[in-house]
Amino acid sequence: MKIAIIGVGLIGGSMALKLKQKEFATKIYGVDFNENNLTKAKELNIIDEITDLEIAVKNSDLIILSIPVDSSVKLLPHILDLINDSQTVMDVGSTKFSIVEIIKNHQKRKNFVASHPMWGTENSGPQAATASAFSERAAVICDAEMSAESSLNLVKKVYENLDMNLLFMNSEDHDIHTAYISHISHITSYALANTVLEKEREEDTIFQLASSGFSSTVRLAKSHPEMWVPIFKQNKENVLDVLNEHITQLRKFKSALEKENYVLLEELISNANKIRGILK
Amino acid sequence: MKIAIIGVGLIGGSMALKLKQKEFATKIYGVDFNENNLTKAKELNIIDEITDLEIAVKNSDLIILSIPVDSSVKLLPHILDLINDSQTVMDVGSTKFSIVEIIKNHQKRKNFVASHPMWGTENSGPQAATASAFSERAAVICDAEMSAESSLNLVKKVYENLDMNLLFMNSEDHDIHTAYISHISHITSYALANTVLEKEREEDTIFQLASSGFSSTVRLAKSHPEMWVPIFKQNKENVLDVLNEHITQLRKFKSALEKENYVLLEELISNANKIRGILK
Repeated sequence: MKIAIIGVGLIGGSMALKLKQKEFATKIYGVDFNENNLTKAKELNIIDEITDLEIAVKNSDLIILSIPVDSSVKLLPHILDLINDSQTVMDVGSTKFSIVEIIKNHQKRKNFVASHPMWGTENSGPQAATASAFSERAAVICDAEMSAESSLNLVKKVYENLDMNLLFMNSEDHDIHTAYISHISHITSYALANTVLEKEREEDTIFQLASSGFSSTVRLAKSHPEMWVPIFKQNKENVLDVLNEHITQLRKFKSALEKENYVLLEELISNANKIRGILK
Repeated sequence: MKIAIIGVGLIGGSMALKLKQKEFATKIYGVDFNENNLTKAKELNIIDEITDLEIAVKNSDLIILSIPVDSSVKLLPHILDLINDSQTVMDVGSTKFSIVEIIKNHQKRKNFVASHPMWGTENSGPQAATASAFSERAAVICDAEMSAESSLNLVKKVYENLDMNLLFMNSEDHDIHTAYISHISHITSYALANTVLEKEREEDTIFQLASSGFSSTVRLAKSHPEMWVPIFKQNKENVLDVLNEHITQLRKFKSALEKENYVLLEELISNANKIRGILK
């Protein structure tokens, strides 16, 4: 199967590596606005051929859109204009409602499958790509009933080859859930990094003292704005709901401390410990 | 060297394992209020002999206090009453000002060394102990000038045997720094866990969707209140300062989103990205 990867970064690159390893992909065309990414991806054998968007789309059975979510929304209608009925387009973005909304009346709507493999790191670019990235993680397919059976089956096969566990939900629910279990984590990490950077001027001391707990909590704060500003923008309402709730929860800790109400503080912590039963 | 470990949990147990492995400890007495911990620690060869506090203290060259910080503050004066001039007591708690304050006028003050190895996990108990726990991490010794040279040198040797990198600071500075790089991370994790648990009732969906990003941000929320309530209590003022700053930082994200000021949002994220240069 010939595959076009539009955006040969961390996610597109990791998919390409695994789909080649599984011999699901026989040829991979790489398209990217960033020339360095393309050269690097070719060097690393992530892609087989560097080409432009139209040639890649015309020559591929499957087109994978793995670029920031604002660019996906702009580019997808154009890609759907270019394909014929036997081709399939999938995206892998972290927000889903905006992208399904933009092409809901497109005559090739059924050739598109909206999806989201739940994996990422704070690193970016093809040099961070790895074939084992997605194994045993969840992948979500949204609004499956809007896609043709052939396209849906093809995308299911892609995720099977990535060794991912498939989930199905509508795009609105997806965006609510990801606000809770992904987008808010990034905001708290960014805010925590800014808190420490704001107050703590002795950077050597941070660097030397920073425990593994701090490092894991602040890890996501290394994630780039090019990817995350568009996600927060597209999922603004849900993210604001969760952010308001999170600030309310933090205020409870603040209030318990200020009032020296250590019984309440213990209750808040014991409640949080319930996450232990949910997350392994 | 004979060592008494008062509190054979994660930290005390990990120290015992490593100090035996390095043959720094020839005999380890284990003391704990929790009988299960003692039995488990003996089974796992973490300690050599289960005994009571007085016998352990009388028979040891070095007494390591590795219990919650509120218990340490209560127990330390009593332990100092029991020792002679050739013995050394060290603690490994996450707050330092309260403990040095409580014994500042004790006639055996110089036999005590206040310290804090910067390592921990969300797990607890001797079964979570591991000899490699502390390697290459920072260990802080506080108010070193208040300790006798012989006691200080002994504690330095302990941390050398744990393969830790030593730092020296006063106890007030320690408590400010740890508020920033450890205590606030725990509060944000707890609050994040409570945010998700509060709103998201479909627990299966959290469980299935939770990405590695969420898991790492919320990992510390599994930490027990028995350890953390006393830490927050003893470091209340510093933790409140940092918590207020953190809420202010979160409000900036909220405001940027509400006002759709994506230039500001990008600035906030780019600033947070500077943590990349500080943390490896």
